[in-house]
Amino acid sequence: MVKLALLGAGRIGNIHGRNVLLNPEAELVALYDPYQPNADQLSKVLGCEQMTPQQMFADPTIDGVLVCSATDTHADLIEQAVAAGKHVFCEKPIDLSLPRVQEVVAKIKASKIISMLAFNRRFDANFAALQQRIAAGEIGEVEMVSVISKDPSPPPVEYIKVSGGLFRDMTIHDFDMARFLLGEEVVDVSAQASCLVDAAISDAGDVDTALVMMRTASGKLAQISNSRRASFGYDQRFEVHGSKGMLTATNVNEHTLTSYTEAGVTRAKPLHFFLERYEQAYRSELAGFISALNGADLVLPSMDDGYQALRLAEAAILSVQQGRSVAVSEIGLADVQPNRE
Amino acid sequence: MVKLALLGAGRIGNIHGRNVLLNPEAELVALYDPYQPNADQLSKVLGCEQMTPQQMFADPTIDGVLVCSATDTHADLIEQAVAAGKHVFCEKPIDLSLPRVQEVVAKIKASKIISMLAFNRRFDANFAALQQRIAAGEIGEVEMVSVISKDPSPPPVEYIKVSGGLFRDMTIHDFDMARFLLGEEVVDVSAQASCLVDAAISDAGDVDTALVMMRTASGKLAQISNSRRASFGYDQRFEVHGSKGMLTATNVNEHTLTSYTEAGVTRAKPLHFFLERYEQAYRSELAGFISALNGADLVLPSMDDGYQALRLAEAAILSVQQGRSVAVSEIGLADVQPNRE
Amino acid sequence: MVKLALLGAGRIGNIHGRNVLLNPEAELVALYDPYQPNADQLSKVLGCEQMTPQQMFADPTIDGVLVCSATDTHADLIEQAVAAGKHVFCEKPIDLSLPRVQEVVAKIKASKIISMLAFNRRFDANFAALQQRIAAGEIGEVEMVSVISKDPSPPPVEYIKVSGGLFRDMTIHDFDMARFLLGEEVVDVSAQASCLVDAAISDAGDVDTALVMMRTASGKLAQISNSRRASFGYDQRFEVHGSKGMLTATNVNEHTLTSYTEAGVTRAKPLHFFLERYEQAYRSELAGFISALNGADLVLPSMDDGYQALRLAEAAILSVQQGRSVAVSEIGLADVQPNRE
Amino acid sequence: MVKLALLGAGRIGNIHGRNVLLNPEAELVALYDPYQPNADQLSKVLGCEQMTPQQMFADPTIDGVLVCSATDTHADLIEQAVAAGKHVFCEKPIDLSLPRVQEVVAKIKASKIISMLAFNRRFDANFAALQQRIAAGEIGEVEMVSVISKDPSPPPVEYIKVSGGLFRDMTIHDFDMARFLLGEEVVDVSAQASCLVDAAISDAGDVDTALVMMRTASGKLAQISNSRRASFGYDQRFEVHGSKGMLTATNVNEHTLTSYTEAGVTRAKPLHFFLERYEQAYRSELAGFISALNGADLVLPSMDDGYQALRLAEAAILSVQQGRSVAVSEIGLADVQPNRE
Repeated sequence: MVKLALLGAGRIGNIHGRNVLLNPEAELVALYDPYQPNADQLSKVLGCEQMTPQQMFADPTIDGVLVCSATDTHADLIEQAVAAGKHVFCEKPIDLSLPRVQEVVAKIKASKIISMLAFNRRFDANFAALQQRIAAGEIGEVEMVSVISKDPSPPPVEYIKVSGGLFRDMTIHDFDMARFLLGEEVVDVSAQASCLVDAAISDAGDVDTALVMMRTASGKLAQISNSRRASFGYDQRFEVHGSKGMLTATNVNEHTLTSYTEAGVTRAKPLHFFLERYEQAYRSELAGFISALNGADLVLPSMDDGYQALRLAEAAILSVQQGRSVAVSEIGLADVQPNRE
Repeated sequence: MVKLALLGAGRIGNIHGRNVLLNPEAELVALYDPYQPNADQLSKVLGCEQMTPQQMFADPTIDGVLVCSATDTHADLIEQAVAAGKHVFCEKPIDLSLPRVQEVVAKIKASKIISMLAFNRRFDANFAALQQRIAAGEIGEVEMVSVISKDPSPPPVEYIKVSGGLFRDMTIHDFDMARFLLGEEVVDVSAQASCLVDAAISDAGDVDTALVMMRTASGKLAQISNSRRASFGYDQRFEVHGSKGMLTATNVNEHTLTSYTEAGVTRAKPLHFFLERYEQAYRSELAGFISALNGADLVLPSMDDGYQALRLAEAAILSVQQGRSVAVSEIGLADVQPNRE
Repeated sequence: MVKLALLGAGRIGNIHGRNVLLNPEAELVALYDPYQPNADQLSKVLGCEQMTPQQMFADPTIDGVLVCSATDTHADLIEQAVAAGKHVFCEKPIDLSLPRVQEVVAKIKASKIISMLAFNRRFDANFAALQQRIAAGEIGEVEMVSVISKDPSPPPVEYIKVSGGLFRDMTIHDFDMARFLLGEEVVDVSAQASCLVDAAISDAGDVDTALVMMRTASGKLAQISNSRRASFGYDQRFEVHGSKGMLTATNVNEHTLTSYTEAGVTRAKPLHFFLERYEQAYRSELAGFISALNGADLVLPSMDDGYQALRLAEAAILSVQQGRSVAVSEIGLADVQPNRE
Repeated sequence: MVKLALLGAGRIGNIHGRNVLLNPEAELVALYDPYQPNADQLSKVLGCEQMTPQQMFADPTIDGVLVCSATDTHADLIEQAVAAGKHVFCEKPIDLSLPRVQEVVAKIKASKIISMLAFNRRFDANFAALQQRIAAGEIGEVEMVSVISKDPSPPPVEYIKVSGGLFRDMTIHDFDMARFLLGEEVVDVSAQASCLVDAAISDAGDVDTALVMMRTASGKLAQISNSRRASFGYDQRFEVHGSKGMLTATNVNEHTLTSYTEAGVTRAKPLHFFLERYEQAYRSELAGFISALNGADLVLPSMDDGYQALRLAEAAILSVQQGRSVAVSEIGLADVQPNRE
């Protein structure tokens, strides 16, 4: 039985904490949140005690920590976990600064802990099956990957101001999925972006609508389309075109009813947003981490996957700024070396 | 917190027992199964003690029982529960004998217990929404209900021999759903049936493929098509045609992927069978029972609904035997009176 | 080059007449309509002369006639064509009286002319492919055929009064398609019917909503659902369930657009009615007749197919009247003998 | 009755020539093809005489010409038609050289003839409805247009060598449709391209797989994905995302059948290629031209539309060559002035 501690009792901490309860192979022994009402409420629901991070890292009975705290604390907490020899499950992002992420990844690589960056979409049963069928050669060689990714409505501008911007905050998932489905590293990135949804987003220095094109060394292509607003709900689709055919993954809808009336034929909208859409994926990603701690030999999204996705985001930002295709090799290091301290 | 006891620890007892665990408003305090290995295994999983039915009915702390035992014990157990003043949740059927069901319903009606016959489909979120939208008048007056209901493969012939036959065992769900969606009682039933899937089913005196037509007093029509075998999976669909349009509920599929190749465009099959298909419905039906015990004012499928569905099954059987349309009024009592013992 | 003459210049005469123009293997040499404006208008459009039926039958250069006149003239015109040795393409029905149809079929069978009853649905490319794939064994043995057939709105009551009623006028197509898809003759028919759409239809002695169940000697089952009104358009679908799977044919829709908005996901309605829906089928059925006249070895829907479909309609009517399953053998002759005059 | 002459009796000349026959408002009086067997065969089918282009341009009874000849003759023939005062319907492209197209457009603008560049997709009923519904504001402001456009298989390399390359030959349609749907001129173009389908295409100096991103002055975005090979057929889809929703146009499929078997649920593939897919569009585009000649006030795709689409193609080519976003203003003239000779 794996013993876990939870750092952060906000919305995402609630999800992961409750999912530990549903998993028979793990136990949540402690949680921490600097906002005491959150900590009190969730520790009561989960029936676990409260500890400070220092206590968690010092407690020899705790096997791993779930980093679900504010974004700007992730990197420090991961480093402390590494230092304490605790396994780490971390909500994305590691950090919004590429050099900082590079440092963290270097330390992770030098350590023996099991770590995972929680790119939840890889664990959606549909998308996981999509990647497996592609990898099994069902459509021959992958040639073009299309990622359609739109949120139902933009987050508050206050959030946007600290989010790192559309490419680092939202497209980051799409960059990861593009890498996951391409099966090959991207070498060139171009992007175009606009602020069409809300002028306040532009005032905050960000964009809300964007396109990205990418190319791998062997010439495979990928495209991403993003909007912060889709009035019909959360739009999360993939199309992968290969030499022998195409595989698509469509949205998951609210229900299976269709209405046929004089006005037309109407079916359900997509599930509204990520909490509904990725409910199963959240359970599965945590189950993957727990299984790995129990000795299973699984390929989990790594801290390095987080680093590589962030490189693509940085390349896209540079492409928009400079109106040119950006070589990923211009951004950071292709291969972060282990930090031998 | 409602306290429940479980009678029967087989497949369906496992489902309901585990669902009590997931429900924060109820507690499973005891279970019983005459087959000791089942009882031992499930009581360990659920962390509850073992009691005999007599002990359960005598225990003043137990609010209600879940009857998940062998079909031929249901009626007796319900009667004992009524006598003991325990609320009853019962897996279908109450009994395969219409007069026996009539007796049980009469006793239930004379009592003050809360009871529910577990017609799980009414609790499928899609079908529940279908009924609500119809009742809200979205397609005007209901005129024709079509129920398509096919199992992926027939049960063992040993099961079929004790099942009561296709109409009482399988179509019973469709009769209930037809009543649920029509919103009016059926007055005439016609049926045609064949044995096309497996000759052993015919040897056992049963059929495996059937059609039913029904008519209400106001002239609304309903049809059911059944097969014990659908090579592509569990086929459970509804079409309701009304004066202002049509509402359909399609199957729930295994995934959202579609493959486009030279061979064609292929998507997922329906979920294989009832355990996958009605996983959510099983949780919801038990939640409904528990809510009712906690005082919620809910319309649950009643023991009388079980009786009325069985009347339709008996009418269908008679129709096949005699090659004629059978008036439901020929079968049993339209309105079972409370048994004032 | 086949030379044809057209009897009847109303709506359906217009369709077939214009389709002769589009067919490079036939020429329309003459037409007749007792209503002179219709005859004048269409003969001008088609650039052909006007003749009386007597002149047509006497003209040795005319190979065949297209009977598109009023229903009550069909049988006489077919008999005259047979007597004159002219090939006959006849709009359904042959006649509304079963004995009269029997006489006509007997004369056709005794003759050497090529004849065809224009059951247009057999020539819809989708439905023709459906039948071919079933016949090729794609879903194993056929076990259940479901025909869904609803008109967008009822015809004028004046039409209904002379139509022969729902079963002879509308369901007749569905009876033919059921026979076509079953690949085996029906032996038992049950039906239920109501008047739900318009009380004036009931006043005219007819019904507007109906269900039919049928059974073949080997136990295959078929069901039909009919309504004279579907607010969303012409609803013409088939489901054929076999031992190895299911084949369905859905509606043809107005366009391929889908709208995703806050209100839902809306796509096109089915094509509104038979003129749009069966535009291609009308061309193909006439092309089939013309090809046969040019020597092609084709299986066309025969006058006997019309007779057999009418037997099923008569059986359905009797079933509704008497509340019982009707053996088709009770109705007319199983096998009409050639009339050796 | 409009009198037309046809220049070119190859595959596309056959299509347009036969469509004149089907149009009651026009007459084809003459055709020309330098390859005599083609000219003889088609003039026989269409029942028209043969003339040289010089004779056509000199014949005062001829209202307009259909330019369906080899690509490298289009520009000269259009200029001759302008000089002779004949209306011109021209298959795309006008020419592969942007300056040459500029000259032709200048002459057209200075003339009073009616001219049309045959961008057939604008006349597909689905795509025309898509544009109309967008223009009517159904999805609010257009924000992102996605064009998916893949051929079933690449043309012969001999064709590719003279085609002008993927962007000028194939993507040109997508550029036109993007302009049509955006409702605003593109200002920036980026593209990425690969040769993944056939190395012989690369040897011929071309690519077979490409992505394009575009941006308008107001920030609307558009993306195109192209492949010369889609094993499942011709893939021609549009998605338009707006401030109030999304409109999509999917492929037109071969039939409406779906097969449900143990292997999965399989439906029809898209219509194989442009001849089947755009059969109706070819008829409609010619009908549009003929209606315009008969005085209808229609917006037809103009020679200038051809010029603007070619500018986007040139920008895309430059973007691939230089790895940068290209301003459309760098390419040719934004507004071709009438050539006042």
